[in-house]
Amino acid sequence: MLDGLLGRESLAGELERPVRLLEAMRYAVLGGGKRLRPFLLIETARLFGAEGMGAVRAGAAFEMVHGYSLVHDDLPAMDDDDLRRGRPTVHRAYDQATAILVGDALLTLAFDVMADPATDVSADVRAGLVLRLARASGLGGMVGGQVLDLAAEGRWTPEGRPLALSAERIQRLQAMKTGALIAASVEAGALIGRAGPAEMAALSTYGTLIGRAFQIADDLLDVEASTETAGKATGKDAARGKATLVGLHGVDAMRTRLAAIVDEAVDRLGPFGDRAAVLVEAARFIAFRDR
Amino acid sequence: MLDGLLGRESLAGELERPVRLLEAMRYAVLGGGKRLRPFLLIETARLFGAEGMGAVRAGAAFEMVHGYSLVHDDLPAMDDDDLRRGRPTVHRAYDQATAILVGDALLTLAFDVMADPATDVSADVRAGLVLRLARASGLGGMVGGQVLDLAAEGRWTPEGRPLALSAERIQRLQAMKTGALIAASVEAGALIGRAGPAEMAALSTYGTLIGRAFQIADDLLDVEASTETAGKATGKDAARGKATLVGLHGVDAMRTRLAAIVDEAVDRLGPFGDRAAVLVEAARFIAFRDR
Repeated sequence: MLDGLLGRESLAGELERPVRLLEAMRYAVLGGGKRLRPFLLIETARLFGAEGMGAVRAGAAFEMVHGYSLVHDDLPAMDDDDLRRGRPTVHRAYDQATAILVGDALLTLAFDVMADPATDVSADVRAGLVLRLARASGLGGMVGGQVLDLAAEGRWTPEGRPLALSAERIQRLQAMKTGALIAASVEAGALIGRAGPAEMAALSTYGTLIGRAFQIADDLLDVEASTETAGKATGKDAARGKATLVGLHGVDAMRTRLAAIVDEAVDRLGPFGDRAAVLVEAARFIAFRDR
Repeated sequence: MLDGLLGRESLAGELERPVRLLEAMRYAVLGGGKRLRPFLLIETARLFGAEGMGAVRAGAAFEMVHGYSLVHDDLPAMDDDDLRRGRPTVHRAYDQATAILVGDALLTLAFDVMADPATDVSADVRAGLVLRLARASGLGGMVGGQVLDLAAEGRWTPEGRPLALSAERIQRLQAMKTGALIAASVEAGALIGRAGPAEMAALSTYGTLIGRAFQIADDLLDVEASTETAGKATGKDAARGKATLVGLHGVDAMRTRLAAIVDEAVDRLGPFGDRAAVLVEAARFIAFRDR
């Protein structure tokens, strides 16, 4: 689907799609990745028997937003990363100007896809999808979380000293930077499935919890990948003096907490019975993955 | 309206709005500018008696997209400008990371505003606004135009030699980079006003023509105005060896063509009679402004 949405042919209202830009956009989002957000969206919609292309298109839109955020976060002025998914980052494979514009174009195309009648027959659902995606990824969600993250790393403090954040502030930062988009992908699936209010509430909580689990698992991986590697004493977070819950509470405590969060997330799927088996597995995969 | 949309309080689905980001976003869009796109949108909606806050909100969304594009275009990796509207650009007043994120957040918030029920009671209209805004500003519109523009300046040619573009290619580049968003702001006003197909077609052509006039006027100003009058650096096109229609055909020929385009645009407003007096004036202002 991502591949099809990034074709040469221009849509109504577009004039032409410049080849260089299109190629770099494809490089950014077609090079692997877990495709977690589309997966969650499609499986949530499937709970309600919504099996059409709408969920696949909406999932692709979430993947575009996720992909754009990685391209911009990798820029030299941000996290300055040269590698992503084992390949040069977009600004290394192309250049910085291209990377900035690739991000801008992916973000814009995501909203295009959501608002397109091909995604859902109901304009109410389409506008709802746009609104949820925007709230989860904008200044009060993902982008705001990246600002809090740079601030926490000491970007704007004298001598660049990292901030000593409370557990509450770390959780808020992570909920914004990664949790909100994961939760929104579940909610978007529920929206496409015409979930009722109680179902939406249960799935929304499930989404928030697995978003939290995702980040704790990420922080644990950062610590443990480094202990396995004999040459390096610490992972990236510790090297940057970055405040994480794992750093604050320790590995064992967070392993226990992670298991509890997964149990709670799975509980919310109770009303859906066996139909939710894949989402149950997804919660476990997110928490206990090894990459 | 822009001011109100950039308030401290977070909306449903947002977690919090980081102060630093919000301040920089306000710096980016509240520091003057002609507010051309909101003006066109509001006046077009008014043709149909649509006087509510919907057009004002949608106009603010267009201004956010315009503002984000300036913030990103000014970055060192893009056009590398230090001044905008007589003040330091966002990456000079703050830093590059903040400027990248300000742009991302403004773009996202624009789609949020369009999809919000407060903008229009009809979800069809809201989804239509999102779609038009996205098509005009994405890879087949504004962002794509910026890619073509950097390419034309020789960004990706050996020795950085500017491309010798045909008049047709220059016009396409300009239609994408600036024309599409101006035309879309007129179309958005027509959408909010529930314009019929014939009215939409006439206004869409009007929008395309004044978009073209805007760019020719800009190129003429770059040749003729001083930095002081224009509020930004002038003479830049020639210095960069940039291909413009003014460079290709000369000032006199383009002055004549500009007047003809304005006449044609005004013609399209004929069916609206005296109600369109403000849009007639707008076409003249755009073509014959001095900054």
